[in-house]
Amino acid sequence: MKSIREPVRQARGDATRQSILDAAEVVFAEQGYAAARLEDVALAVGIRRPSIVYHFPGKQELYDAVEADIFASMHAYVVAHTAGVTDPMARLLALLDAWLDFMVARPTAARIIQRLIADVGPRAGNPIEFSETALRDIEAIVAAGVEAGHFRPVPAMMILNGVAAGAIFYVCNARLLGEGRTYDPADPAELARFRALIHTLARAAVTSGAG
Amino acid sequence: MKSIREPVRQARGDATRQSILDAAEVVFAEQGYAAARLEDVALAVGIRRPSIVYHFPGKQELYDAVEADIFASMHAYVVAHTAGVTDPMARLLALLDAWLDFMVARPTAARIIQRLIADVGPRAGNPIEFSETALRDIEAIVAAGVEAGHFRPVPAMMILNGVAAGAIFYVCNARLLGEGRTYDPADPAELARFRALIHTLARAAVTSGAG
Repeated sequence: MKSIREPVRQARGDATRQSILDAAEVVFAEQGYAAARLEDVALAVGIRRPSIVYHFPGKQELYDAVEADIFASMHAYVVAHTAGVTDPMARLLALLDAWLDFMVARPTAARIIQRLIADVGPRAGNPIEFSETALRDIEAIVAAGVEAGHFRPVPAMMILNGVAAGAIFYVCNARLLGEGRTYDPADPAELARFRALIHTLARAAVTSGAG
Repeated sequence: MKSIREPVRQARGDATRQSILDAAEVVFAEQGYAAARLEDVALAVGIRRPSIVYHFPGKQELYDAVEADIFASMHAYVVAHTAGVTDPMARLLALLDAWLDFMVARPTAARIIQRLIADVGPRAGNPIEFSETALRDIEAIVAAGVEAGHFRPVPAMMILNGVAAGAIFYVCNARLLGEGRTYDPADPAELARFRALIHTLARAAVTSGAG
């Protein structure tokens, strides 16, 4: 199985830069952009703030690198998991499986994407500077299914908001629903059950004739 | 149609307190808890910071009042829109319609809930102090459908994460998907199309036999 941190991260030679990125992803995921401080990232890596600034001039640049890494890894993961799958429905389910598995294995990414969608900034100028690959991945698969006559003409954005959103909520909500409702998103039985639901929803979304 | 700000807000006599709450909801929605400043709320209301502190001792208390108001209004909206509906499927669709209409009419609430799910805090101690009514609303309806044998035994939390999540993404994502993908969630045709999708997904989630 393709790693959720490959191949973008492996190409980088600098171990410190990678440690900073890993720590920053946790800090941005837990605290959000506004509250995150370079000092917290430095503390987590065990270096001093100037060592971060040597690699990343400021918080915005560090955040951008984290977000770019998430979406590049996610796209690579999707490409690997949909390669050779030609049937439109099988491709759609493979894409949604890849996104779900990616979020479960990298919950910091799920939380950062959840924040992205709440935030207008810091990517207000071009909110999809890094996420466009993900949008194109789902658009291409939905368009192919519609063209082949296998899917009803449903906009890809409805599948994104209506079905793919579930993978992010599933990961982020695990400990937020109160006593007696906590679950482990990585538990194999739990994950299998949610994956089956996502498949059911995806099939219904693209094939159901009725509103 | 029941107002999305009734009846909680009407019961309060103090117009200034209400103006502070309304402005704070916008500030918390746009900036998040960490970045929000009481000064921004004061500026939006046209009062000075001490006038806010007279009503709300601090940022946490002001945030709590906003979150409490959102979930109380949302619950009242659901109660009004499911009253007299007895068939389990019709009740489930009425609940999801109520949530969707509530989010569309009050996008600041959608954005605050989206943030809640990204954040561990400020409700880390009891994350559902205010949202428990919403969780109970959906649990009661799903449980009734399962008991009546109309629904397969699907946990309410899967409907929450898999189907209801869509209403929040639909509202929050409207201007975040880049050029050519922007939509108006309140546009009647757009909303009708997304509502039909939510109905399709809800029916599939509770009645589909296969995974």
